[in-house]
Amino acid sequence: MIYLDNAATTPMREEVIETMHSCMKDVYGNPSSIHQAGRKARVLVERARRIVSKKLNVSPSEIFFTSGGTEANNAILWGCYKDLGKKHFITSPLEHPAVLHSVESIARYHNAGVSLIDIDSKGHVDLEHLEFLLKENPGSVVSLMHANNEIGNLMPMNAVSKLCRQFDALFHSDMVQTMGKLHLDLQALDVDFAVASAHKFHGPKGAGLMFVRKGKSFRPWIMGGGQERNMRAGTENIYGIAGLAKALELAEDTMGMDQEHINNLRGMFLQLVKEKLPDVSFNGDAEGSALNTIVNLSLPEKINSEMLLPNLDIAGFCVSSGSACSSGSTTGSHVLTAMGVSDDRPSLRVSFSRFNTIEEVQNFVEVLRRLCHE
Amino acid sequence: MIYLDNAATTPMREEVIETMHSCMKDVYGNPSSIHQAGRKARVLVERARRIVSKKLNVSPSEIFFTSGGTEANNAILWGCYKDLGKKHFITSPLEHPAVLHSVESIARYHNAGVSLIDIDSKGHVDLEHLEFLLKENPGSVVSLMHANNEIGNLMPMNAVSKLCRQFDALFHSDMVQTMGKLHLDLQALDVDFAVASAHKFHGPKGAGLMFVRKGKSFRPWIMGGGQERNMRAGTENIYGIAGLAKALELAEDTMGMDQEHINNLRGMFLQLVKEKLPDVSFNGDAEGSALNTIVNLSLPEKINSEMLLPNLDIAGFCVSSGSACSSGSTTGSHVLTAMGVSDDRPSLRVSFSRFNTIEEVQNFVEVLRRLCHE
Repeated sequence: MIYLDNAATTPMREEVIETMHSCMKDVYGNPSSIHQAGRKARVLVERARRIVSKKLNVSPSEIFFTSGGTEANNAILWGCYKDLGKKHFITSPLEHPAVLHSVESIARYHNAGVSLIDIDSKGHVDLEHLEFLLKENPGSVVSLMHANNEIGNLMPMNAVSKLCRQFDALFHSDMVQTMGKLHLDLQALDVDFAVASAHKFHGPKGAGLMFVRKGKSFRPWIMGGGQERNMRAGTENIYGIAGLAKALELAEDTMGMDQEHINNLRGMFLQLVKEKLPDVSFNGDAEGSALNTIVNLSLPEKINSEMLLPNLDIAGFCVSSGSACSSGSTTGSHVLTAMGVSDDRPSLRVSFSRFNTIEEVQNFVEVLRRLCHE
Repeated sequence: MIYLDNAATTPMREEVIETMHSCMKDVYGNPSSIHQAGRKARVLVERARRIVSKKLNVSPSEIFFTSGGTEANNAILWGCYKDLGKKHFITSPLEHPAVLHSVESIARYHNAGVSLIDIDSKGHVDLEHLEFLLKENPGSVVSLMHANNEIGNLMPMNAVSKLCRQFDALFHSDMVQTMGKLHLDLQALDVDFAVASAHKFHGPKGAGLMFVRKGKSFRPWIMGGGQERNMRAGTENIYGIAGLAKALELAEDTMGMDQEHINNLRGMFLQLVKEKLPDVSFNGDAEGSALNTIVNLSLPEKINSEMLLPNLDIAGFCVSSGSACSSGSTTGSHVLTAMGVSDDRPSLRVSFSRFNTIEEVQNFVEVLRRLCHE
């Protein structure tokens, strides 16, 4: 089996599995308990928080662990509305459903406003339109993901954060695809909020984090005990948290090497596609400002889109038509639709990780070529 | 170290750790992906759902996995308000903060009503008062935990569910303390909603479930992808879910034996306390209708409450003054306060599991005796 769906989720790194395994054997206390069993668990959680905050160049007091990126996106957006008094949200039609559905729900049931930024045919946000929207709605919340999960496009973070500062807006960024792939200095990126999910960078599913800048905190979205300094109730997933920190630490350790390797895979893939599949086109800004792990393709119209993924699956290749959430459907993604990409041609998302090889990429292109010429 | 704080959290069973470890090595797909890696993860999740639903005598379609009991309590109570049109909540002052804070928040910010049922000095709800409240507010939501997490009192479930049916109320029960300790037939208990948390029955932290009776479902509280049949967004914590199911399966397998063992521990403990610590009293209905795992004590007034837990900790005993959430404070629990228990006397919660021994209980009473007579 050749796994090229790393934007959906990634295999855990062996060291992460072993870290979690040994924590499961050795540590079982509730971090809120003050006795020794509890303190041992507390040390695990706070050590993880220190590792993460150091890697992201923020204070440990600004990092809060969650069950994943989706929960974190919900908590931040609702928190902005409920507790920070924000009544207008500016986002893009290309965002993840965790952001779009939260914002839509706040708007529909709570009388907040939402503006969607225009995007161009390559999937980049129109910064002039963002400026216009901010001028019309000063003091908004801007929610824009760092790298798009379907097409890989990178957000021009500095330009966005500058505009946000200029118009007194809060800037939230879903960094689920970039955390652990790019080195993220959250001070330099100048965001107010960010979220990530461990399973996207070879960590465990069920563990994520939110960065909440000092002074921008809100009442807990999940209410109960006072965990996570009263920002997120519920007994901490100490194994998941330890795994998340280990995965981020490893990702940073091997980042240079991994980036080079993935750049090579991507370069080879783009080159082979152009050479061998001239009737295939790239969606998004594949050859411009995009995260190296994600490539989105439109295949020739004659390909039976319903049979494409099953045929690739039979041939041993795991890829997707878009985000995993909508894998079951062949009705095209909201991202490609918003970009004006015709759904007459089946689309494919190919996403790499450090564990893929040049041979896998070559084999994949060969199989695609056969399917396109059958 | 002798761990007598099993109501806060429990050590994982070895078989649960090994199940999770092997899943982490073998399964990494996203259950929403339709390719073979995804299907393998989907099988893991659905097998877990089948195991759990069979043990609880409900349909797999009525079980939804969450990050824990707290999240599940939040989701259900908000869902009742948002989507099921419920505008009045009836609960007890002895509930867990996950229920109390959710209901208070719905009431304060969304103009719903809340009634608190009177309780007696033993911590049992006044069923006549519940009936009165239901009469005054037909069509309410009643939220009452199966066993109290601080004093162990058991709820008279059948009487409550009968009253709920009579007055067209929905019945939600936090079963965090009883799941995996008592055999729970959710049909027979006749609840509309229930929640549990794996780490309370020797499963992993970060995994829980909600039972939502067919026809009583609501829009997802965590919004995003359509996971958990659109009831709970976010990539599934597949390792946690597999661990939860394994832990529940094991708990049911050894339940008879474990109950007998814990009954013996409890019996010995109560007897020794009465014999050797005549100035110690039990809070709640310790010798009546209570879960066998939890005993709550008030110690003599002369004991320095601030030094009690640290002294026990130094002696190697992990116990708590109440729930883990409030372990750091010595200002007394909301449960004991609501019951009218004086906070002049320090309180202790002792909670057993299958892993405790008669010797541990004997040693603990001996240490308590020394502390009381120093």
